[in-house]
Amino acid sequence: MMMVQAVAIIVAGGSGRRMLDDLPKQYLSLDGVPILGRTLIKFEKAPSVGRIVLVVPKDDVNYARDEIADKYRIFKAKHIQAGGETRQDSVRNGLEMVDDRDDIIVIHDGVRPFPSEELIDLSIREAARMGAAVPVIPLKNTVKIVGEDGIIIDTPGRNNLRLAQTPQAFRREIILEAYRSAYREGFYGTDDASLVERMGVPVKTIPGSHDNIKITTPEDLALGELLLKKIGAGI
Amino acid sequence: MMMVQAVAIIVAGGSGRRMLDDLPKQYLSLDGVPILGRTLIKFEKAPSVGRIVLVVPKDDVNYARDEIADKYRIFKAKHIQAGGETRQDSVRNGLEMVDDRDDIIVIHDGVRPFPSEELIDLSIREAARMGAAVPVIPLKNTVKIVGEDGIIIDTPGRNNLRLAQTPQAFRREIILEAYRSAYREGFYGTDDASLVERMGVPVKTIPGSHDNIKITTPEDLALGELLLKKIGAGI
Repeated sequence: MMMVQAVAIIVAGGSGRRMLDDLPKQYLSLDGVPILGRTLIKFEKAPSVGRIVLVVPKDDVNYARDEIADKYRIFKAKHIQAGGETRQDSVRNGLEMVDDRDDIIVIHDGVRPFPSEELIDLSIREAARMGAAVPVIPLKNTVKIVGEDGIIIDTPGRNNLRLAQTPQAFRREIILEAYRSAYREGFYGTDDASLVERMGVPVKTIPGSHDNIKITTPEDLALGELLLKKIGAGI
Repeated sequence: MMMVQAVAIIVAGGSGRRMLDDLPKQYLSLDGVPILGRTLIKFEKAPSVGRIVLVVPKDDVNYARDEIADKYRIFKAKHIQAGGETRQDSVRNGLEMVDDRDDIIVIHDGVRPFPSEELIDLSIREAARMGAAVPVIPLKNTVKIVGEDGIIIDTPGRNNLRLAQTPQAFRREIILEAYRSAYREGFYGTDDASLVERMGVPVKTIPGSHDNIKITTPEDLALGELLLKKIGAGI
């Protein structure tokens, strides 16, 4: 089996405005451990991840180092990097910490604390094989494409629609070139894969999980506590 | 203000295979009241709804009458109709109970117990005005269009994408013709609006709600109990 060296970029740039709490959502406790701490522990334990770049809001760098990375013994968190205005800007700042030894870059949302170890490893393996890999799950609801006037334009067939998750993994040169190109042309995407897709590079989907939720609302947090009981803490 | 007479078709045809329980999900208890009972109570209380047609699996007609409609005093439930194989077949069976006095048909999922009274009324008013109305909410996640080979084809811009909910309301002649046409041509859609859209009839979107969830998994049920605490039972 090919050995690849992967670096994880964990993006936790959010100011948490959608939460009722004043504390940015990535620092909220999920059964005693901050969401971001839980996320990092998953990558600390994933054998295929060699190093972690953690990206947090610029005022939080010290807090994240002391209260998250050090406290939860995230030895792989070699860099704590200041984020930018948007998620994409934060990932770009994270990518500055990548070097030539890194074969694969795996990018993950800091507020998505339940990626399985298998999913992390699969995303890295598929990226090594195919260039780019993104976990997806089927949609349970009908999606509509709606015009400016509020009239429905189309209902795309659900068979071909998927919801994208993270970890999204890429060969180094692919994601670096995609980011360079996006910033050259002022393109902002809703996820990292969209920057790669627009280069014409094939992006492979892999099976995500309904448990791999992103926590952005109080309801998500409650669901997270429920899932924690179901799937176990993994720490 | 124009007075319109609306009939609600509540579709609860599901056999509940996605739930762990043997009981079809529409009969599962949500804090002491079956999900379907909660849904029906909302339409019983909505002033703009004159009559309810309840559609349940064919073996459940007596159970639904005795244990749901009668027990929770759903006086508007004039018809309890046997459903078909798919949701669309069940709605078609429900539409057989519509008559010429009904101006508006409002179709709703039996396992979606938290539509607000305002949303039910708005859907009916907008259908009276525009012909067809569908509640939608923004998407929190990135959607991908994926090919048969698992490679991503496109990431549609999130600005124009919405998740469709129910109640979906239509002028009688519009939805009846849409169903006739769909069955004539063997078309199956994922929601009622999609049958109307393919006729070229404009369908107006109205603001839905994140609370207006569809309960199809154990996690949904737990979220439902949480929402019940937040928004109150409304009964």
